[in-house]
Amino acid sequence: MKERALRAIAECRHIAAMTEEPGRITRRFLTPPTREVHAHLRARMQALGMTVHVDAAGNLRGRSAVAGRRLLLGSHIDTVPDAGAFDGVLGVTLALECADLAREMSLPLAVDVIAFSEEEGVRFGVPFLGSRAVAGRFDPALLALKDDAGHTLAQAIRAYGLDPDQIPAAALDEEALGFLEIHIEQGPVLEAENLSVATVTGIVGQTRLTIEFAGQANHAGTTPMHLRRDALAGAAEWIASVEKQAKRTEGLVATVGKIEVSPNAGNVIAGAARVSLDARHLHDSVRLGAVAEMIEAATTLAERRGLAMQCTHQLDQPAVSMDEKLTAYLADAIEMAGLQQKPMPSGAGHDAMVMAARLPTAMLFLRSPGGISHHPAESVREADVEASLHVMRHFLQRLSAEIR
Amino acid sequence: MKERALRAIAECRHIAAMTEEPGRITRRFLTPPTREVHAHLRARMQALGMTVHVDAAGNLRGRSAVAGRRLLLGSHIDTVPDAGAFDGVLGVTLALECADLAREMSLPLAVDVIAFSEEEGVRFGVPFLGSRAVAGRFDPALLALKDDAGHTLAQAIRAYGLDPDQIPAAALDEEALGFLEIHIEQGPVLEAENLSVATVTGIVGQTRLTIEFAGQANHAGTTPMHLRRDALAGAAEWIASVEKQAKRTEGLVATVGKIEVSPNAGNVIAGAARVSLDARHLHDSVRLGAVAEMIEAATTLAERRGLAMQCTHQLDQPAVSMDEKLTAYLADAIEMAGLQQKPMPSGAGHDAMVMAARLPTAMLFLRSPGGISHHPAESVREADVEASLHVMRHFLQRLSAEIR
Repeated sequence: MKERALRAIAECRHIAAMTEEPGRITRRFLTPPTREVHAHLRARMQALGMTVHVDAAGNLRGRSAVAGRRLLLGSHIDTVPDAGAFDGVLGVTLALECADLAREMSLPLAVDVIAFSEEEGVRFGVPFLGSRAVAGRFDPALLALKDDAGHTLAQAIRAYGLDPDQIPAAALDEEALGFLEIHIEQGPVLEAENLSVATVTGIVGQTRLTIEFAGQANHAGTTPMHLRRDALAGAAEWIASVEKQAKRTEGLVATVGKIEVSPNAGNVIAGAARVSLDARHLHDSVRLGAVAEMIEAATTLAERRGLAMQCTHQLDQPAVSMDEKLTAYLADAIEMAGLQQKPMPSGAGHDAMVMAARLPTAMLFLRSPGGISHHPAESVREADVEASLHVMRHFLQRLSAEIR
Repeated sequence: MKERALRAIAECRHIAAMTEEPGRITRRFLTPPTREVHAHLRARMQALGMTVHVDAAGNLRGRSAVAGRRLLLGSHIDTVPDAGAFDGVLGVTLALECADLAREMSLPLAVDVIAFSEEEGVRFGVPFLGSRAVAGRFDPALLALKDDAGHTLAQAIRAYGLDPDQIPAAALDEEALGFLEIHIEQGPVLEAENLSVATVTGIVGQTRLTIEFAGQANHAGTTPMHLRRDALAGAAEWIASVEKQAKRTEGLVATVGKIEVSPNAGNVIAGAARVSLDARHLHDSVRLGAVAEMIEAATTLAERRGLAMQCTHQLDQPAVSMDEKLTAYLADAIEMAGLQQKPMPSGAGHDAMVMAARLPTAMLFLRSPGGISHHPAESVREADVEASLHVMRHFLQRLSAEIR
């Protein structure tokens, strides 16, 4: 298993060199380095006896030659700009090891591997393009989306030699046991609790909105405190209240990560301040209740301060539960591997969230050292990768036992 | 007086058309429209019998032909980008009316008029270049300052046909009764109290500094609240505390007008936040005490939040008092004009602040409708301008009485 773990990691490092920008890892949807990744993974899949094709959404799909019930494993191969080497890609290289393991153990499982083409939403502003197609949830209207260069999604797909009209055919057309995604946690929880892996109970629901406070820009020296309508002071009061509410609501994360102030000069009272809110929770009712309170707080403080307040919702995405049975199998496998249980929600969206709409889906998290992701310093521990393979071996055996 | 008021206003509107940018009022130090302003004002000064010259710092100086004690009146003719028509210029056009008034009344006063070349600090980043030269406080090191086009201050002066080596000769070389500047308030106080004019007791001292909070950028979904080191949340808490302290300290204004957050993305916890502080008060001890408390608050909250905190002082400028006698004469003149007294500090810097280091100096504020300045909507009320001329007539008479 140690050898498999080292190879899965080495493969991530190897694929990291396939990038749009020399010296940085950046691999957006169907950009030229995607061809290199496809060529490399195609060869590995073929070596495992798989039949390989790229579907019309750019997903590389390796189909097992084993006659048996089908299990899908995989993750995405696109990256954010200046990314790390493991987000997504590790889920693909580990999937290949698992397919090989299943073959080695002669399990009655056909382990298919999917390398999703797009998950990050960087190039066209909308994420999960790959898994949407596989799950049969690809809205054709998406084809009109444009990237920064003005190319539509349809044009990008054609430029890669694929036919966007064939995307419906990319949808899974047969019943499978399920989909399982192995992914780095991209957060600090496992490290803080000194654990290697976790089962994911669900993907949190998410609200994203923008609040704009409008006051009156004015001279910082000549305007007494009582005659000010300071938009930044109002925004600051709101940011503090959002943080307080998130801290007192179990399991809620709420973030103001972006602020734009006008005119943003040291000697001018801010006339306008626009702030973002990103709120997530595993239970939609908790999230929606908290967000309503946050908007109410903004309304109240704006009134008190003589500010205008406008709230614009960008996203209200419900939480998605992972499949109970597959997740229980994973938990059993963790125990059989001699590791401590850790059920936790995923605070980030993943392809598993989209796939869950189509078939039973589960996720296995690996510790992210330093909680660091979406950054060149992103890493994994060899021992954790090895542990995840032990877990997967037990999981594949448990699933096979069900079939027999 | 009404005619004089209307002319002083019309002259401001006329000069407003002399601009670097068609459709906007922008007139930086010694840029081409300065020549038009000089030509126009020179003709008006000469019509009043004055001897006119442009000193080596670009100040246009009209010297009265009257044999008598000298009084200097004036303000600046440069502007901020996209300015209003009255900031500075009104103090020059009213000075011309006052010189004419003194002549008309045959007062034993030689009323000189100065149109300072630079007060706003826009072109070279350092303000008061004109009055520094007249007050004999011009540091030759300033000549090496560069504008955005890479020209030094010395080059800009030479390009205008002047000799920077002669700046020391621009300093006042004789004793005068004093300097008086008429200026719009650029704030909302007189409008809020429904008053036309005010005597300025002094120019507030000012601290400008930057506080940078450094935490850890992280994923907004995967990082639980208790494992965050959110630099923007820290900055927001600090902004709120600055506002609270300013509100409870009589006469203090404190402004956080600028914030820069990194990476400034809605779904990423802020790793760094840099905020500005601008704090002003008429009494240096109050200002310095308050600023020390604000820095202490930043230190304390940074420690509690696990943030690094760095404070960089940009400016610590002491308050400047106006001359007691001249200011008392102005106050008397306001009373004789049948207006209500209003002594107030100036929250903004003015040429009067620099001139006060060289000779007795006083300032008269005029109401700014809407408190608006440094904006095309900047205006004055005719009745207020007329009132200021009545005040100045009484002031000039009072000063003359002293001489006789």
